[in-house]
Amino acid sequence: MPQRTRIKALAFDVFGTVVDWRSGIARGAGPVLARLGRSDIDPHAFADGWRRRYQPALEEVRSGRRPFVILDTLHREALEDLLRHHAIDPATLDEDTLVDLIHAWHRLDPWPDSVDGLTRLKTRYPIVTLSNGNIALMLDMARRAHLPWDAILGAEVSRIYKPLPESYLATARMLAVEPAELCLVAAHHSDLAAARAAGLQTAYVDRPLEYGGRPAPDADDGQDWEFSVDSLTRLADELCR
Amino acid sequence: MPQRTRIKALAFDVFGTVVDWRSGIARGAGPVLARLGRSDIDPHAFADGWRRRYQPALEEVRSGRRPFVILDTLHREALEDLLRHHAIDPATLDEDTLVDLIHAWHRLDPWPDSVDGLTRLKTRYPIVTLSNGNIALMLDMARRAHLPWDAILGAEVSRIYKPLPESYLATARMLAVEPAELCLVAAHHSDLAAARAAGLQTAYVDRPLEYGGRPAPDADDGQDWEFSVDSLTRLADELCR
Repeated sequence: MPQRTRIKALAFDVFGTVVDWRSGIARGAGPVLARLGRSDIDPHAFADGWRRRYQPALEEVRSGRRPFVILDTLHREALEDLLRHHAIDPATLDEDTLVDLIHAWHRLDPWPDSVDGLTRLKTRYPIVTLSNGNIALMLDMARRAHLPWDAILGAEVSRIYKPLPESYLATARMLAVEPAELCLVAAHHSDLAAARAAGLQTAYVDRPLEYGGRPAPDADDGQDWEFSVDSLTRLADELCR
Repeated sequence: MPQRTRIKALAFDVFGTVVDWRSGIARGAGPVLARLGRSDIDPHAFADGWRRRYQPALEEVRSGRRPFVILDTLHREALEDLLRHHAIDPATLDEDTLVDLIHAWHRLDPWPDSVDGLTRLKTRYPIVTLSNGNIALMLDMARRAHLPWDAILGAEVSRIYKPLPESYLATARMLAVEPAELCLVAAHHSDLAAARAAGLQTAYVDRPLEYGGRPAPDADDGQDWEFSVDSLTRLADELCR
């Protein structure tokens, strides 16, 4: 077996890997939907719809057809689209309510093992975000949830969205490490596959509750990742021994 | 007296304000100069010469005559120039020694009050770097010195060097705050003056030992800053009460 390159830094996907976006968004959306008299809409389905809806907008930016805009902006557009889909005119919500709902993405809870796992991993490796989330979003989330990042990197810093190869390569470059010295930690096979294609090492974290127990869209795309664990504390067991 | 805008985040100059670059560089350069048989060169004067020497290169980038390059690169060029000034051919130093010397900037010690002050300020405000230092430099320094930044912003993230107005404005934008809601904390009147001109609030930290007890180049450029303290713990006393 060939010797693995020594890992010098860990970059983390965040939504789904470190925090539970579905429960957090449902928690934020529930009371708003209730105030609108729309308790018929399941807040968890609303969260799923929101997450799904900004993928086409991300693709517009990735393709270069649209200049870079931050995720908060794409979240807002996707929310307005989702509201219209449910026959709710976004203009009937006041601006504070809209912004507060968009900021539900800033207030997501970590999975139970995340803070302990990150704290232990940080003793050995620099730990940075490599998320499509913007800086203010990641910073608000980290302060609220006590995520001890060494740096917030990712889309807004490199002005490019995953899974384009340059998003991974720019992060390695900013950390002054070779791509093979950087390990992406993610719950999504698609993200890991793109990172591997760019030359990074890969650590898969199984998060069976990300979609409320239903399989992830890319559940069948697994590969033989360098690491495969079911929590960040287990990753710390493997990487910090 | 007009009501001040509420501060929502603190951005810090780092070299001189949070860490003691002169002692750290002298500590790194001393043994190298000794090995070269050049104990006649005072390591502190060497540090002063190095710091002074990259200002023209910074100006080349600020003016747009040269595309953005990170500070590690400018540090290297300035070092080679300084060595030649002392009749030392940079090629006589092996690459590891050169890189290690450049990385002395990654291993600077904080002033005695910095970690405690930042830790207390962080309980109330997001604290970010707004330094001309690059990301890997700031990250290495923070891990070694236990500086608890919420995010590493500044030159490499905004692709622009202080004191250009956009360096301050881009930082406010990335934090999703208005310029007047962001306070720059710095030991240099010139930096603070540029931040104020861009609309930021300002906190001056007196660091009489930055130049080994001699006055700073901009010592006479003081203004009536919003805050003026002699340590980051004193700033925490003022801002966290």
